[in-house]
Amino acid sequence: MKSFTIIGENVPRTDGEAKATGTAVYADDIKLPRMLHGALLRSPLPHARIKRINVKKAAALPGVKCVITGEDTPKIRYGNWRLFPATQDEYPLAVDKVRFIGDEVAAVAAVDKETAREALELMEVEYEELPAAFDVKAATKKGAPVLHEETPTNISVDRKIQYGDIQNGFEASDYVREDTFTVHAVSHAYLEPCSCVAQTDLDGRITLWTSTQTPYIVQCLLASTMGLRENDIRVIVPHVGGGFGGKMELRPWEFCAAFMARKTGRPVKFTLTREEELATGRRRHPMTLKSKVGFKKDGTLMAKDLEIMLDGGAYNAMGPTATFLCGNFGAMLYRYPNYRFIGKHVYTNKPPASAMRGFGAPQSLFAAESQMNIAAQDMGLDPIDLRIKNAQVTGDTIPDVATISSCGFIESLKEVAKMSNWKRKRKNMKAGKGVGVGCYSFISGGVFNWFNTQFPFSAAEVRAFDDGTVHLLTMATDIGQGSNTAVKMILAEELGLRMEDIRITSADTAMTPQADLGSWGSRVTLMNGNAVIDAARKIKEQIFGAVSADRKLNVIYDFECKDGMVYPKGRPDKGMTFGEAVSLVQKANRGEPLVARGSYTPRGKGLVTPAFSFGAQVAEVDVDMETGQVTVEKMWTAHDCGTVINHMAVEGQLEGSIHMGLGYALSEQFVMEEGKTLNTTFLDYKMPNAMDMPPGASVCIETYEEEGPMGAKEAGEGLVSPTAPAIADAVFHATGYRCKDLPITPEKILNDLKKK
Amino acid sequence: MKSFTIIGENVPRTDGEAKATGTAVYADDIKLPRMLHGALLRSPLPHARIKRINVKKAAALPGVKCVITGEDTPKIRYGNWRLFPATQDEYPLAVDKVRFIGDEVAAVAAVDKETAREALELMEVEYEELPAAFDVKAATKKGAPVLHEETPTNISVDRKIQYGDIQNGFEASDYVREDTFTVHAVSHAYLEPCSCVAQTDLDGRITLWTSTQTPYIVQCLLASTMGLRENDIRVIVPHVGGGFGGKMELRPWEFCAAFMARKTGRPVKFTLTREEELATGRRRHPMTLKSKVGFKKDGTLMAKDLEIMLDGGAYNAMGPTATFLCGNFGAMLYRYPNYRFIGKHVYTNKPPASAMRGFGAPQSLFAAESQMNIAAQDMGLDPIDLRIKNAQVTGDTIPDVATISSCGFIESLKEVAKMSNWKRKRKNMKAGKGVGVGCYSFISGGVFNWFNTQFPFSAAEVRAFDDGTVHLLTMATDIGQGSNTAVKMILAEELGLRMEDIRITSADTAMTPQADLGSWGSRVTLMNGNAVIDAARKIKEQIFGAVSADRKLNVIYDFECKDGMVYPKGRPDKGMTFGEAVSLVQKANRGEPLVARGSYTPRGKGLVTPAFSFGAQVAEVDVDMETGQVTVEKMWTAHDCGTVINHMAVEGQLEGSIHMGLGYALSEQFVMEEGKTLNTTFLDYKMPNAMDMPPGASVCIETYEEEGPMGAKEAGEGLVSPTAPAIADAVFHATGYRCKDLPITPEKILNDLKKK
Repeated sequence: MKSFTIIGENVPRTDGEAKATGTAVYADDIKLPRMLHGALLRSPLPHARIKRINVKKAAALPGVKCVITGEDTPKIRYGNWRLFPATQDEYPLAVDKVRFIGDEVAAVAAVDKETAREALELMEVEYEELPAAFDVKAATKKGAPVLHEETPTNISVDRKIQYGDIQNGFEASDYVREDTFTVHAVSHAYLEPCSCVAQTDLDGRITLWTSTQTPYIVQCLLASTMGLRENDIRVIVPHVGGGFGGKMELRPWEFCAAFMARKTGRPVKFTLTREEELATGRRRHPMTLKSKVGFKKDGTLMAKDLEIMLDGGAYNAMGPTATFLCGNFGAMLYRYPNYRFIGKHVYTNKPPASAMRGFGAPQSLFAAESQMNIAAQDMGLDPIDLRIKNAQVTGDTIPDVATISSCGFIESLKEVAKMSNWKRKRKNMKAGKGVGVGCYSFISGGVFNWFNTQFPFSAAEVRAFDDGTVHLLTMATDIGQGSNTAVKMILAEELGLRMEDIRITSADTAMTPQADLGSWGSRVTLMNGNAVIDAARKIKEQIFGAVSADRKLNVIYDFECKDGMVYPKGRPDKGMTFGEAVSLVQKANRGEPLVARGSYTPRGKGLVTPAFSFGAQVAEVDVDMETGQVTVEKMWTAHDCGTVINHMAVEGQLEGSIHMGLGYALSEQFVMEEGKTLNTTFLDYKMPNAMDMPPGASVCIETYEEEGPMGAKEAGEGLVSPTAPAIADAVFHATGYRCKDLPITPEKILNDLKKK
Repeated sequence: MKSFTIIGENVPRTDGEAKATGTAVYADDIKLPRMLHGALLRSPLPHARIKRINVKKAAALPGVKCVITGEDTPKIRYGNWRLFPATQDEYPLAVDKVRFIGDEVAAVAAVDKETAREALELMEVEYEELPAAFDVKAATKKGAPVLHEETPTNISVDRKIQYGDIQNGFEASDYVREDTFTVHAVSHAYLEPCSCVAQTDLDGRITLWTSTQTPYIVQCLLASTMGLRENDIRVIVPHVGGGFGGKMELRPWEFCAAFMARKTGRPVKFTLTREEELATGRRRHPMTLKSKVGFKKDGTLMAKDLEIMLDGGAYNAMGPTATFLCGNFGAMLYRYPNYRFIGKHVYTNKPPASAMRGFGAPQSLFAAESQMNIAAQDMGLDPIDLRIKNAQVTGDTIPDVATISSCGFIESLKEVAKMSNWKRKRKNMKAGKGVGVGCYSFISGGVFNWFNTQFPFSAAEVRAFDDGTVHLLTMATDIGQGSNTAVKMILAEELGLRMEDIRITSADTAMTPQADLGSWGSRVTLMNGNAVIDAARKIKEQIFGAVSADRKLNVIYDFECKDGMVYPKGRPDKGMTFGEAVSLVQKANRGEPLVARGSYTPRGKGLVTPAFSFGAQVAEVDVDMETGQVTVEKMWTAHDCGTVINHMAVEGQLEGSIHMGLGYALSEQFVMEEGKTLNTTFLDYKMPNAMDMPPGASVCIETYEEEGPMGAKEAGEGLVSPTAPAIADAVFHATGYRCKDLPITPEKILNDLKKK
């Protein structure tokens, strides 16, 4: 382990004060002269052909400045999988057809919100209703209604991962088990609804302030849908109130704001209502997972065969990635000598599912971890022992897919067992009380270039000044996860400066260095952290040279930056302040400022990620045997995120993950009827609140990830996965009810208890 | 002359549409969450000691969030002449003393403007009034009240320029003439009053949006007055509604906004009223100019002795520069073999004078040009012939001060004589009708580093993209003069692109390349233009190499960028698009974007400027002999600004200059009583309006200035000077009244006519 000055400390968030005092500017806070307010007309039908749209009355309403339908637009399709244009299946506004209740049909911009919404009432759309399919089964049966003509099967993505020979594996197994699991859709439920403001700028170009995780993706796709060049669009990300995967695509309102701003010459703002968000927004993929595993009787894993059907809703969105990642996560955690995965992404007439924190892992690992617990039970083995026996370790490979370069999984399992007093509790608990275990592995960003970027995956610019400060510019986007704080800490550590010596500017596609693929897949700390270190080292090279020349030092000296000073290692007396050293470089360059650019692109790291995180979690529950009500009493977590960058932030991510896992396991779900979402407020959509949070204890198993900045890897997403299988296992331990279809509701428990 | 594609064309302003449609964001348009509104308490006395300030009642007013006086501040003095700290004589808020009516004493920030202003009424200041001096004579006589203890003489700046031997010069002269001229104060009268918003940003630093010509200077001085580091301050310049020299210093409201934003954690806005602007704002220096010239009887100039007293008002402001420049302009236009200048800058108890369009030239040249006309009259020579005889030409030097590297002065004189039919009109005009001539030379930015910047004088960054666009970043500030358009044109020309291919971002001290000294002294086109070309050439070097490698070309080929293409000269068939060439460079760098930085610092260019402009103007007037009312009937102008960059912009500058010159000559003045400005609205302060503008004709005498970008030099300021002496001369021609004390009022004319 290396020794650090600031890395691993508890560092308050760089954006904390602004958010706490209410001065932080979110997209909806932006007010511009002559700004118009937009509203979207959405389809009331799950599947229909648009025969005619009459916007005359709406356009004539006083105060309405612009009305557009799909017919007014260039009709260019978009989608995040730019490398494979065939996957790009969405129009900003419906062209010919609508495919889900909420599909965007038209947009209006008016002098205020009320007028814009009133105008929506005046629009007349004549639809020809079409038969609809609301689940995977209905969408894949013979004669099913076809959502996209190019995809007559409704199966838009078909992926396979295979290594070893599962046939042989199962034949050599003593115990083979097959289960089918189903998991449901849940909402990102970010506190800040989507919002954006578009303005034509100085150059007649478009500036878009938007609540997004991916300014570069929005820039590129907005440009292509508008028939413009990428650099005709500038995306600036103000403060963001959460994303969780739900804000990583181009969205219709971003297009409509930009398109109408260009049409009217006036700024246009859109802010979604919570009802729109819940009724029509992206959600986590519901899936059906058929999993077959084989073990030797000593518990040695022999084979796994996994088939997943993803209910994608009406469009691909991030479905192609989710499909692949489900298969990847199915192969993680344990050594499967023979493995096969088949994943199919299916269109249905529902709001599109897409990326959501965990990105395929919560679903895939709910199945895998539940099945591991079932198998242990069947074979009479302790589920933690069974896991340790098969656990992946540093250096393990998934053939042609990934190499695990650091792994603290076994240590996590051992630690969580110890913390939770697992052995004793698993054996001796009263009826209605139980403990259960769940584990995870997650990625630290992806390596597959599905967006087909021409730039490095992440970049940073560091400008150093003679007043001892530096300015860090990065397109990496702080969406509330704390990345600005993390990369500042990495830079502070590398240059021996304090947090207050560093200004950071992030997430402005025109100003911050090209390019960064965005904040998703837990990629920022590792990728942008590496880019920051790359830039910092270039700065150091120059200041070390300047000090060496000024002090006329022996060439043999190594240098370091510490406490605001630059000096030969072990000889602070020969040093000078960082600012003085910068000034020397600047003088040598006759005034030119000291600026360096760094970047990171993962190369030679397989198909998935540069680095995997691991962890294990134990849940203790109390189940009311009369009502079926589950109370989670405690959560123990041990996880390996490599070097901890900001201890406070890692704790926060853990708590947020447990919170989301809790909702996923027990209470959150969309109530749907014929494609219509019925629970569209936070009164009906049951997120856990602070009072529902169980006490918890956690330990970081620190490994040193060579590919990560200062040894760090993922910490913000993986932890969302183990909670549901751990709770399900604990409920089984408490009641004998083994949940295979989330969420675990009191009804399901009571029905099961009644059956017995 | 070189041939250009876009240079010299009529190109509409990049910011024109936003301004015309009302969507341009000026500082006062900025609205931020929880923003407070500031107001300033100003001294009602011209000179007084502050004995006590009681702000309790003001602070207790509901809605008031912050009240500060000088006592709350770090009491650090500032001033633009940072190289000589002794010249820095201003506090953001008065400490101990006030020195003019309007001097800032305290500031308040409240939830709205009305409350802030109400709070001012509740402040109690006890003053001990001191004797005051309201003009140079009173301030320099024995026993005069002392404004600044460090300057017991009240003469804060004392400058001398001398070459040759004036004694000998006058002795060898056949005709010697001495006159004393006085010129008055006028207002910049920019349409946008000063306004700023300060906010503590992500990093606890300060972001200041402000209407300024000099973001870098404001950044540095705000930092030092607050006791912060330069990079703790970020200055962003929104659209600016004119500056004319009046917005090139740190101003008390900028300090107060930043200081109170830091104190309250909330954004704070200040916007001055027009009354505040006119009553207390900066103004052009009133001066007394004693000038003595000697000629041989054939008209050959032999010597000049010039003594100028500047009435500086209460603080130095840009007075030191004005003092030096007056002397420099006194030596320009004509070959003075022997020259002496003594300039004294005097403190008086009035609002400080400072830089204003022309920066010493309107005053100095009113005297010089008037005296030239007087001498011609006395010697019986035609004033234009006398000028041509003595005119400076390319290559002339002012010993140890400047070299004139391009000069179209004689051509200008000849052209304006021809256009105006000078010879005929000067001889045969009716009483009450007259023509007169005035000339100018001006600088294209300064070379003396009075601000002591550590950076290049100007810089630019160019980012080139594979979509065929480029992004130009510059700290040069478009204050309405059109610099964004000009530098974009220069870049378009250099890279063979169209205006719409270029995005420009300017004037943001954190984002645009360090550093630029600001928009003043007509420095931007030359200095930033050169920096832009420097950056563009570095881009070209790389794309030429990439094309050469890709096409496997003979090393002998020269390349060019034209019409969006890059190709070997004369072989467009071997070329590719600019975007394709950029993409090749990027591929070669494995994704790293193509970015280049350029800069310009004038070196080896004497003490004044890298390049001088020249020009001549003829005015034709009609004087109503009964009322003394002067009507300017026509203006003819011929001027040498080197290569014309944007023909439309040069025309606009000429018209604006004539407008300002007209006001200076005839109508604008401050009515003062015991240090109090009485005319504080546009009803009382008589600017000419559009209906007062005479028709005009103009010709650009194009020279090629080797030091300028594409041969360009100054075009926006020099032309403000010839109008007043030309009109004065025309009035003399029409009436026999020779004005030596501006403005030329009907009263003065009538009084003179009566005397005869």
